Amino acid sequence: MSVLVMKFGGTSVATLDRIRRAAKRVGREVAKGHDVIVIVSAMAGKTNELVGWVSETSPFFDAREYDAVVSSGENVTAGLMALTLQEMDVPARSWQGWQVPLRTSSAHSAARITEIPTDNITQKFAEGMKVAVVAGFQGISPEGRITTLGRGGSDTTAVAFAAAFNAVRCDIYTDVDGVYTTDPRITSKARKLDRIAFEEMLELASLGAKVLQTRSVELAMRYKVKLRVLSSFEDGDETAGTLVCDEEDIVESNVVSGVAYSRDEAKMTLLGVADKPGIAAAIFGPLSEAGVNVDMIVQNISEHGETDMTFSCPVDQVARAEKAMREARESGEIGFSDLVADTDVAKVSVVGIGMRSHTGVAAQMFKALSAENVNIKVITTSEIKISVLIDRKYMELAVQALHDTFGLDKVA
Amino acid sequence: MSVLVMKFGGTSVATLDRIRRAAKRVGREVAKGHDVIVIVSAMAGKTNELVGWVSETSPFFDAREYDAVVSSGENVTAGLMALTLQEMDVPARSWQGWQVPLRTSSAHSAARITEIPTDNITQKFAEGMKVAVVAGFQGISPEGRITTLGRGGSDTTAVAFAAAFNAVRCDIYTDVDGVYTTDPRITSKARKLDRIAFEEMLELASLGAKVLQTRSVELAMRYKVKLRVLSSFEDGDETAGTLVCDEEDIVESNVVSGVAYSRDEAKMTLLGVADKPGIAAAIFGPLSEAGVNVDMIVQNISEHGETDMTFSCPVDQVARAEKAMREARESGEIGFSDLVADTDVAKVSVVGIGMRSHTGVAAQMFKALSAENVNIKVITTSEIKISVLIDRKYMELAVQALHDTFGLDKVA
Repeated sequence: MSVLVMKFGGTSVATLDRIRRAAKRVGREVAKGHDVIVIVSAMAGKTNELVGWVSETSPFFDAREYDAVVSSGENVTAGLMALTLQEMDVPARSWQGWQVPLRTSSAHSAARITEIPTDNITQKFAEGMKVAVVAGFQGISPEGRITTLGRGGSDTTAVAFAAAFNAVRCDIYTDVDGVYTTDPRITSKARKLDRIAFEEMLELASLGAKVLQTRSVELAMRYKVKLRVLSSFEDGDETAGTLVCDEEDIVESNVVSGVAYSRDEAKMTLLGVADKPGIAAAIFGPLSEAGVNVDMIVQNISEHGETDMTFSCPVDQVARAEKAMREARESGEIGFSDLVADTDVAKVSVVGIGMRSHTGVAAQMFKALSAENVNIKVITTSEIKISVLIDRKYMELAVQALHDTFGLDKVA
Repeated sequence: MSVLVMKFGGTSVATLDRIRRAAKRVGREVAKGHDVIVIVSAMAGKTNELVGWVSETSPFFDAREYDAVVSSGENVTAGLMALTLQEMDVPARSWQGWQVPLRTSSAHSAARITEIPTDNITQKFAEGMKVAVVAGFQGISPEGRITTLGRGGSDTTAVAFAAAFNAVRCDIYTDVDGVYTTDPRITSKARKLDRIAFEEMLELASLGAKVLQTRSVELAMRYKVKLRVLSSFEDGDETAGTLVCDEEDIVESNVVSGVAYSRDEAKMTLLGVADKPGIAAAIFGPLSEAGVNVDMIVQNISEHGETDMTFSCPVDQVARAEKAMREARESGEIGFSDLVADTDVAKVSVVGIGMRSHTGVAAQMFKALSAENVNIKVITTSEIKISVLIDRKYMELAVQALHDTFGLDKVA
């Protein structure tokens, strides 16, 4: 029997009507002959309400109790979805995380999935059940307590079930109809992609595209789970949405697949750093210990034994980074004359697996930005992406220029 | 170590402020040296919301899914209560029904408790935990599915924990400050009782007093659990509220302890019934099969081989009773000339364990009602209560007259 995993996010199950609409989609897949595992989020707004109560009760809360409280939203949706399917004469039942049991680490509120036994649900499928509705985002720790998986936890649950059950596909129903070449709010030329490679999706997700969480894409890539992103508000056939898949399944594509951006970056520069062996470790060790996620790093050319060191990090970690650097200077670990933070920047990136075999992408990118008089502050590259840090006010302009120069509005 | 069970109903945990107030009471008992098991209901209104969603989704719902959905309200309160106690530096953690595990029958939405293993919670008490917060109203079936206990389920959970842990007492915090000689809305002379015997409380609860559910009193009586009912909105010492206890623990009491009433009764009369052996069985068999809860029964004196049979039942079962009787007549099981339903009646009862040793209570009751010109339609008695069915319009008058005649406003 072929198992299909379908995941519905909070906006897709926000009301009883929307749950009914989602259940109809599930019913259509059952009619096609699939056994379906449905992963549900809490009704939109419910998790925030619960998180609010916990935070108001206890600002530095016990994460075990936090998990016990916030996981209840998904349980409600799972039961209601099962009842809705039963009303449509589709044999269905709900599972809470501990009933599967979806086993996780003990890292409460950010737990990692360790095991999903399949026998329980497989047995029910064999007995004639057609749909297993599973509460997403939650599991059970080795100590028998409820855990939650953290941000994007329901997407991750869905991919993990698809991997465990060797599913034909994992369909992620959300409020957008697929993955775009860039954010359609920035340029109307943005085009929905039919297919995108795991590696590209991973870069786009970590670079700021919000359609899928990085963790779920990583998991899908590792277990070769075909992941489809599609809208729960539009009807479409099997080719609707965007398929995130192995790069071998993509026949033809542009050199660059997408342009991503992020406003949540800050640029920090240490001036007058003594340029000697081990200085990078002396700087980035304390930052790492302070929990600062350093992204890009640039070291300037050294003059008179001194250099400037520039790095970027999330804008909400600037204060923490400054504190760590000042403490390292006071303790004598490092020396620098000044520390300058620039929070008025943005990161713009081009991503594409075609960059592996095509040269000149960086040159074309820099030329296009130069033609618009956009000054580049920092550059980083990987095998399939190039990112630049620029003044925030040029961000939209840069995205539009790059989208045009790489012809992303046209299919390859 | 002495274990105390404290139960907080929905209005006592309706907001974060009220949860804090309840937690303070728990903290005071911990300070006295108790290990405390707290049983919580869902925040007021939450269960109704969930039940509404289930009913709207599926009018004839799968009770297993109903239980999975509606039990979530108690889980939220349990986590929030544990967090609140932790904020007050009281070591606490929450338990959901399946974590205890509180084992029940598979009768979903009306499950019976079969076992409460104590080792898990006892172990935590030994490790220094002071409060176990348990989600009330829920358990786990032999099949591993979530069950709920039905009406009054949280009171029943509390008493069952008190029995399992051999608790010194089970305190039920509610929105009234104890058990009264009668409803204070009917007569301002109503007096709060300091103590009441299990048997009396059981009669009062089944006769319409809403402060405790019959099931929880039955359980308390069977396991000799000292049950105290008190207000969560007033501060009081150890003697606050009403103690429901073994009759041996009551030194002195009035012959009559309380006057109860119910407006939810109907009187039905079958006219012209053939008076022959087996006729009672022929009438009450079909009623029982139709799910009609017959309470009082009176058979008139027979004339010319015919008699009238009168019985009372809950007013919302009248249609069902009429249908059952007509079908029994059509099938030839019974014969009667007419069926008359009177829904304009009320039941008034006096209850007291003193009636066992005092004679003349019935005579005094009938005389008091006669003095007010209240006509008695049906009478039933048990060892410790006398109930009469009267015209509904005289109900308040009858309650007041009986409260006066038995001197319930004064302590014995």
